[in-house]
Amino acid sequence: MNTFVSDSDSGNISKTNYTVVYGRNSIIEALESGEREFNKILISNSAHNDEKIEKIKSLAKDKGVIFQFVGKEKLNQLAPEAKHQGVVAQISPVKYEDLDDFLANNSGQLTSLLILDGIEDSHNLGAIIRSAVCAGVKGVILPSRRSMLINSTVEKTSAGAVNNISIIKVNSLVNAVQRLKENDYWVIAADHHAKDNHYEIDYTDMNFALIMGAEHSGISKSLLKLADFIVKIPMLTNFNSLNVSNATAIILFESVRQKLSVSKKRGI
Amino acid sequence: MNTFVSDSDSGNISKTNYTVVYGRNSIIEALESGEREFNKILISNSAHNDEKIEKIKSLAKDKGVIFQFVGKEKLNQLAPEAKHQGVVAQISPVKYEDLDDFLANNSGQLTSLLILDGIEDSHNLGAIIRSAVCAGVKGVILPSRRSMLINSTVEKTSAGAVNNISIIKVNSLVNAVQRLKENDYWVIAADHHAKDNHYEIDYTDMNFALIMGAEHSGISKSLLKLADFIVKIPMLTNFNSLNVSNATAIILFESVRQKLSVSKKRGI
Repeated sequence: MNTFVSDSDSGNISKTNYTVVYGRNSIIEALESGEREFNKILISNSAHNDEKIEKIKSLAKDKGVIFQFVGKEKLNQLAPEAKHQGVVAQISPVKYEDLDDFLANNSGQLTSLLILDGIEDSHNLGAIIRSAVCAGVKGVILPSRRSMLINSTVEKTSAGAVNNISIIKVNSLVNAVQRLKENDYWVIAADHHAKDNHYEIDYTDMNFALIMGAEHSGISKSLLKLADFIVKIPMLTNFNSLNVSNATAIILFESVRQKLSVSKKRGI
Repeated sequence: MNTFVSDSDSGNISKTNYTVVYGRNSIIEALESGEREFNKILISNSAHNDEKIEKIKSLAKDKGVIFQFVGKEKLNQLAPEAKHQGVVAQISPVKYEDLDDFLANNSGQLTSLLILDGIEDSHNLGAIIRSAVCAGVKGVILPSRRSMLINSTVEKTSAGAVNNISIIKVNSLVNAVQRLKENDYWVIAADHHAKDNHYEIDYTDMNFALIMGAEHSGISKSLLKLADFIVKIPMLTNFNSLNVSNATAIILFESVRQKLSVSKKRGI
């Protein structure tokens, strides 16, 4: 195993540190041992599709690990060209939690969750998780595809907060939201076309899951239509464009303000 | 002139794009023409201190441009080693405004300002300025030393917001705060040791300047003791550590919430 530095997937200007396992035997071993938490396995388009690659694909399917075919150059950025043998696995520094386990562990208490629909930038993801922990959010749900997952840069920019919250990786955000609704969560989506302001919601007396969209594309339509509330952050100017981590912090800390104000009124 | 990519001053993991002018004659020309907005001039410790270097130092003093002596390696990161001749100037993509001009231009209307005491990371600075513009803040005050100034990365991460707000660069934040107080600004400092919560302030009916501290060191003592209010952002967990851009957004958008709520009550 080794740590390499490469630019992030998204073409952003942030540098991202990935911990990787590379080489066919090393990846088979890591998959079989179950001791590593995989983000995804990248296989070179031009890799010779031998028995070992087949074994990696089959093990990945069994373990629910995503694999993707990419250009060889991408792999060369992540691991030494002479050694990766056409396969590189990106490893998470944290263990992902299962949504059902999370729901079982947090039942019987008011719980808030964050759903991130395709955040691309590792610095944004780290800052969001940091704010979420400070705001008492219990879990963050990430989609396994088309999203930045947890890597060393996210861990670092989160100031270690990734270790203080449940990180839940799911194959379908739509299924996850439906599951949450069955479990008495109110689903709130942030969208700047909304009519209602985020501070008009009463966050104090419900389980809620807040959905925040990707940096450029926002929340996907299929998720937006599942939301119980769609809210915006009103602005004082026409420059209507907040960084997604700042937007998340603004809404989460409105919920904190409300919760602390209610405690004060009740004399708690 | 040329644009180079180098790591930021602060040893952060973000890449920062600086626009630079390098070479003795080019810098003399740029200083004399007055057409470029300088962030600072870096002079190699080992540069031969000839007539031209003396002229650069003297012109810089006349124009109020900071110059610093640095290791040659720092210059080599910013400009081609063979061509910089021991001098590189970092250029701002925006024009800095004078504090007195800002005060004159904004007198007679309720105005909010942000004072950033030594922000080090270009991504944080960009995100902060973006939130400030959205929250109707009219100006951002930066110290000319020991702070990230405006460069291409800040401009990019601000989504262009740097062009929608007055950016005021001052040699002394203490003097700037005193000047603001003489001009009927209330000075609010964010510090996590404070007793009062940020949402207990009434932001609706005053000129205010919010001071936010550097990523690691917070607000310097000399500034903190000038503040009229010191406030904290209360947390719901003991993980008491917000990213500075998120913290700034939370406080500024509390002021937005209050202002919009007051407008509603008054039927404006």
